Amino acid sequence: MSEKLVGACIFGQSGGPTAVINASAYGVIKTALEAEAITKVYGAAHGIKGVLDDKLYIMDEEDPEELAYLLHTPSSELGSCRYKIADPDVDDTDYKRILEIFKKYNVRYFFYNGGNDSMDTCNKISRYMESVGYECRVMGVPKTIDNDLFGTDHCPGFASAAKYIATSCMEISKDARVYDNGMITIVEIMGRHAGWLAASAALATAYGSGPDLIYLPEVDFDMDKFLNDVKTVYDREGKVLVAVSEGIHYSDGRFVSEAKTSATDGFGHAQLGGLAAMLAEIVKEHTGAKVRGIELSLLQRCGSHLASLTDINEAFGAGQVAVENAVEGITGKMVAFEREMVDGKYSCKYVLLPLSSVANFEKKVPLEWINAEQNGLTDEFIEYVLPLIQGEPELPKENSLPRYARLKKVIAK
Amino acid sequence: MSEKLVGACIFGQSGGPTAVINASAYGVIKTALEAEAITKVYGAAHGIKGVLDDKLYIMDEEDPEELAYLLHTPSSELGSCRYKIADPDVDDTDYKRILEIFKKYNVRYFFYNGGNDSMDTCNKISRYMESVGYECRVMGVPKTIDNDLFGTDHCPGFASAAKYIATSCMEISKDARVYDNGMITIVEIMGRHAGWLAASAALATAYGSGPDLIYLPEVDFDMDKFLNDVKTVYDREGKVLVAVSEGIHYSDGRFVSEAKTSATDGFGHAQLGGLAAMLAEIVKEHTGAKVRGIELSLLQRCGSHLASLTDINEAFGAGQVAVENAVEGITGKMVAFEREMVDGKYSCKYVLLPLSSVANFEKKVPLEWINAEQNGLTDEFIEYVLPLIQGEPELPKENSLPRYARLKKVIAK
Repeated sequence: MSEKLVGACIFGQSGGPTAVINASAYGVIKTALEAEAITKVYGAAHGIKGVLDDKLYIMDEEDPEELAYLLHTPSSELGSCRYKIADPDVDDTDYKRILEIFKKYNVRYFFYNGGNDSMDTCNKISRYMESVGYECRVMGVPKTIDNDLFGTDHCPGFASAAKYIATSCMEISKDARVYDNGMITIVEIMGRHAGWLAASAALATAYGSGPDLIYLPEVDFDMDKFLNDVKTVYDREGKVLVAVSEGIHYSDGRFVSEAKTSATDGFGHAQLGGLAAMLAEIVKEHTGAKVRGIELSLLQRCGSHLASLTDINEAFGAGQVAVENAVEGITGKMVAFEREMVDGKYSCKYVLLPLSSVANFEKKVPLEWINAEQNGLTDEFIEYVLPLIQGEPELPKENSLPRYARLKKVIAK
Repeated sequence: MSEKLVGACIFGQSGGPTAVINASAYGVIKTALEAEAITKVYGAAHGIKGVLDDKLYIMDEEDPEELAYLLHTPSSELGSCRYKIADPDVDDTDYKRILEIFKKYNVRYFFYNGGNDSMDTCNKISRYMESVGYECRVMGVPKTIDNDLFGTDHCPGFASAAKYIATSCMEISKDARVYDNGMITIVEIMGRHAGWLAASAALATAYGSGPDLIYLPEVDFDMDKFLNDVKTVYDREGKVLVAVSEGIHYSDGRFVSEAKTSATDGFGHAQLGGLAAMLAEIVKEHTGAKVRGIELSLLQRCGSHLASLTDINEAFGAGQVAVENAVEGITGKMVAFEREMVDGKYSCKYVLLPLSSVANFEKKVPLEWINAEQNGLTDEFIEYVLPLIQGEPELPKENSLPRYARLKKVIAK
């Protein structure tokens, strides 16, 4: 345990929103507000951009009861960014500015909540502060629905998205099978490089009814095989439900969604998704069946009304553990999760990983968890994901609608 | 009260699924199973088609506890159809067949659950049976997320869809405002001719955060005015959330979604929706902003995990009241809802309407509930819809996923 370091802290949120990133925020903020060594708790508006812009919210000014609503408030309540910080050896402008702000507010603790890029940002800030001899403890708090962070069993945010996807696929499956005529439904699920989310649709199939076929970006997509798979199920059952990851790609690396321009006659709105609609068109031509394309869109990442209580608790815990360890003298680490199975019962252990070891690596679905036909998941995947989605939070409601945190966001001068 | 009529009953589900149509099914089936006069309870597979095909499930064979799961099972558990029955004066083939089946199973009660077309079917069957002197009591149970049935304050299924839409819009609103760069989000909501569902997005704005602009099919859509509305909000706030009904149309009656062919270069998948994506493209060209299109798709109608308890209870009640009244001698009616406000507290009264008065009329959002700018709703609409979405059901779960009814569906011989 190192010497006691007294000063303010900054907490920031980065990358795409999740259903539970604000639970981590609450874990950091609550623990920091209670920590003796931490004199003031600032929340950066829009992540590192808020630090660079000197736009910090004073969390000490917030009503503690209102802060507790963060546990069930989706998206990043302090605002997020996708700002890519330069390498300090190439351009240290941003770092000088960050140091200036840190000095202005006597910031000695920096907590950053995000995915791969954010851990990279954390790592660079940590190294820079060390290089200039400014004592500041930097801790990363993981977050990503994509579940692709290296070194951790899973990532906060993933399980709630998985639960949203599985539940929605069960509902879609019920709906899509209601008529006695043929119907093929294609559901597009987020995940550009890792297929964890699309894979989670397998929960619906395992515990009710869900997709007959699931395609992940971990393996090459073959359009002919796909059409053949769909046709086989269609001929047998008259109904097909397909889940595809937005990141499915051909063997040459081209995303299937990018190839849509030629297939759909100039409809090339890459940012609007459209993979489901494009595949629907191709399947329709191939089978003559009625085909529907559904994009789960950003609801899958911000669906806090379907959040997993396990996920909420772990997200809170990750924030709490980051602060507790920083106060104890730890720096340059990301909080990670280790799975412990005791008598078949799942529990989550918090561990610390060097930031440098997690930044910029991507964890994918193990190939041995994908079935031989490459159109479904094995039981090992179900065993992996099932404990993570357990538990129903008591959702605060007003007028039977979600009641989210209403923060004052008093800006520090 | 007429003479006691003893015999079997058939119950059928028709039209698009809802989150609570199976609650009505449970209301009918449970009450019918308990009714002394009703000797056997049959569920028609895929609505009237199941009657024509002699495919009837014996509800008496089902486990009563399993039937209770119908309260929280989305979609039409017995299967649905969109079969349009002929006018008996033009072609009575179907009616002769229905009579044959009714005689085969001694069916003296027919309960049909659906929207406008189904009430028409009900009405025609009722009149035919009367004309041939076959005593059979026919009752309609309303259902439609579109909320467009004539003569009833609201329709079972609407409120749960409204709650799904409002909750989802609150989540989308949180997500869409997370970055500090400009962003316009367009959400497409079901409703071809009546705008009740798109209007419900106004609940999100009233009780949290939701759409800035809402466009309904009750008024003509003007693309220039729409673009101007969006631009005005965008220039002021940098973020815009828009909700549009899929049924918005120009003053000449053309659906905006149908006009998309020319606007998007041949991408004409009418059945895939695509209005949101098309408007997103146009808005992007007009504003230069980042624009996202989201289609709530069929999840809005089958999202039973967000069902309104009020809706579930009323849907069950509608089924129950239909059976109770039929047993008492009533025929040729649809169960309807009358709103009663006692000391500012909402309650729902069941009334009976002649089938002939509801069939084939459409109830739209009153024009005086649409704001002067025709891009939002007034407080009167909020007061109308708010009581309907109240109450959270206790959802049966297994492994933290929905537990739906698992019926045996034993086919009558």
